[in-house]
Amino acid sequence: MNRHETPTITTRAQAAALDQADPLADMRDRFVLRDGLVYLDGNSLGAMPHAARERVHTCLDVEWGRDLIASWNTADWIGLPRKAGAKIAGLIGAGADDVVVTDSTSINLFKVLAAALALNPERRTIVSERANFPTDLYVAEGLAALKGQDHVLHLVEHDDDLMPALTEDVAVLMLTHVDYRTGRMLDMAAITQAAHATGILVVWDLAHSAGALPVDLEGAGADFAVGCGYKYLNGGPGAPAFVYCAPRHQGEATQPLSGWFAHAAPFAFEPGFRPAPGIDRFLTGTSPVLSLVALDAALDLWGDVDMSAVREKSIALCDLFIARVQATCPGLTLASPRDGAVRGSQVSFRHEAAYPIMQALIARGVVGDFRAPDILRFGFTPLYTRFTDAFDAAAILADILASDAWNRPEYHQRSAVT
Amino acid sequence: MNRHETPTITTRAQAAALDQADPLADMRDRFVLRDGLVYLDGNSLGAMPHAARERVHTCLDVEWGRDLIASWNTADWIGLPRKAGAKIAGLIGAGADDVVVTDSTSINLFKVLAAALALNPERRTIVSERANFPTDLYVAEGLAALKGQDHVLHLVEHDDDLMPALTEDVAVLMLTHVDYRTGRMLDMAAITQAAHATGILVVWDLAHSAGALPVDLEGAGADFAVGCGYKYLNGGPGAPAFVYCAPRHQGEATQPLSGWFAHAAPFAFEPGFRPAPGIDRFLTGTSPVLSLVALDAALDLWGDVDMSAVREKSIALCDLFIARVQATCPGLTLASPRDGAVRGSQVSFRHEAAYPIMQALIARGVVGDFRAPDILRFGFTPLYTRFTDAFDAAAILADILASDAWNRPEYHQRSAVT
Repeated sequence: MNRHETPTITTRAQAAALDQADPLADMRDRFVLRDGLVYLDGNSLGAMPHAARERVHTCLDVEWGRDLIASWNTADWIGLPRKAGAKIAGLIGAGADDVVVTDSTSINLFKVLAAALALNPERRTIVSERANFPTDLYVAEGLAALKGQDHVLHLVEHDDDLMPALTEDVAVLMLTHVDYRTGRMLDMAAITQAAHATGILVVWDLAHSAGALPVDLEGAGADFAVGCGYKYLNGGPGAPAFVYCAPRHQGEATQPLSGWFAHAAPFAFEPGFRPAPGIDRFLTGTSPVLSLVALDAALDLWGDVDMSAVREKSIALCDLFIARVQATCPGLTLASPRDGAVRGSQVSFRHEAAYPIMQALIARGVVGDFRAPDILRFGFTPLYTRFTDAFDAAAILADILASDAWNRPEYHQRSAVT
Repeated sequence: MNRHETPTITTRAQAAALDQADPLADMRDRFVLRDGLVYLDGNSLGAMPHAARERVHTCLDVEWGRDLIASWNTADWIGLPRKAGAKIAGLIGAGADDVVVTDSTSINLFKVLAAALALNPERRTIVSERANFPTDLYVAEGLAALKGQDHVLHLVEHDDDLMPALTEDVAVLMLTHVDYRTGRMLDMAAITQAAHATGILVVWDLAHSAGALPVDLEGAGADFAVGCGYKYLNGGPGAPAFVYCAPRHQGEATQPLSGWFAHAAPFAFEPGFRPAPGIDRFLTGTSPVLSLVALDAALDLWGDVDMSAVREKSIALCDLFIARVQATCPGLTLASPRDGAVRGSQVSFRHEAAYPIMQALIARGVVGDFRAPDILRFGFTPLYTRFTDAFDAAAILADILASDAWNRPEYHQRSAVT
């Protein structure tokens, strides 16, 4: 997808020329981003689209404030999980009726893991990677413990151990497509195919993929997927997450968080549960509407966007940043793949003083984040990150390292959230 | 608690005099409520507090828009579930550290039911009432099916069947304190005590209690409770829900939706799960912050409020409405207890044409709701409902019934959400 080789950039003027030529450059104006801020943390919390802000104002003043309960119908609050889901579906290679927005990624993962185990009842093992995002592992652990009866979570230590672990006792393979620390991207189609060959169902976590790069769930034959609304989809802090179920499983799939919104007739108030046909059976309770409308509005930004242009810019931004850091920042070790084809939209470096270095960067207006124990992580959101941002971030990082400016007591103080 | 007998009200002037004397009258100004609207549906969706609206604006413009990811620390987003939980604790007779706001009521119910079953592992039965709110039953059904191994949900048909059903095979009793259809309130202390005498743990759903009337979880010895943020707590559409765990269980209680926010060190990114000490172990994933700040701000309204005054006004409002309806609306059957001491803050009537009658009321500016199959439900929110509202609602209802104005084709058309 990287049709053009990124030219070697050594001056800010060259980076500015890339911004001038960027076909996505206009998208930045759709976001609230103040001058002087180099925001490379859209993979923790995407920036605020003006449209999301406006939509929340309308939800407050017109929908909640004025129309009150009637808005479930008149503002179609009831339809929002599906409406937002259909918009995400277009970004991840899914049918419009096969994605729904609801709850958190952790909770949706519980649902699809439980559904997958129920579809593969003779098998008791969930396989994942030790390097997977911890909440995914915790949720699988919680589900295995609840199911009991020899259900286990088996973790492989390295990517190379994955294929050998796909044995006939495995019910479900649960993987995150793009590693949250390193940005390493797995081959979704090849892994899904290999798992299916052994009768294993596959759950993909798209937290660092959706909106970051093109995803093709249907092309890969994925069984289930979940993902996050508040990173590259810019839905706001703690935006609801999404869940995908392949259409071939929707008739049979059941999930235990079977609240009223998963019912075939939620407002008939029947005492017994009957699952809704289709993807609605992955809903549970009432959606947090203020958060959901923000995400729904943020998703409209993608209507104009060519995902191959997003991918091309993402790789170019990351390549530029890596090249500049490697040229000017001795002491940092690249933790991400050098090859853009197998990397998500982030770049990570290791340094034993990663925590105070990141604090020093933030103090200089370059916002990335620290991931324990030693990772400096920089997310590149093609919709609003400029080539000059990547250039400036590397330059400021080089200056901080060269001057030891990071080694001040205040930069070593840990916050509650790191 | 109803210290004064409500005088018989036959004129609007008498109702207006009660409003004049109402010690809670000033609270109405804290809400956005337009002139001419008689909003008796705060038990489906509470009205919007001005403070909640302002708080969401700040969250958009300052926290998400300007400070971005830093707001997890600087705006203490990370502390909001506990901060809001502590405010609710004060309304339900719980310790400030024993309540946390998170997820939906349905999902929190799944957590506490699973925790209760795990604390009572020799027993396999969950008891509830067939008339309980359906999502509670669906969630219990989903959990029992997931646990397998003879776990069952046993439903009693009537309140009178409850005590005989509390046998030694029962692990958990799950009840809703105030019935969503009739407003019938159970005796929390007596039932909890009876259940404990047989070794049964008790889960209370406070959806129609919290903010509606005084609740004393500690006094009743309750084991677990859940409840809703968007009804009498006015947290906004789909506001996050809350969960209570008695301090005596917090050390041992485990719940299977063990996402990263339930971990003892969420940002250490350890691959194995270790539950947080205390109530935080009932968290799962990232909270929907825009929805959570609205609730948190709405909860500040209660700082000035005397819950016994709330209860007294609630009973008086309901008594007035019942008396006026019974005097002027033949054909309606009271579905709520006539005795305010065993009634929540709502009044329901049965009529075979309940659906079109409610649509006709809404068209006249009196908003209650319909609950299948034949219930007209009217919620009385003491913070903003006036005695004149109750009087006017009854008068308009009488007019609609006397004139058969409800019997128009458009009032029979069902909406997606009823």
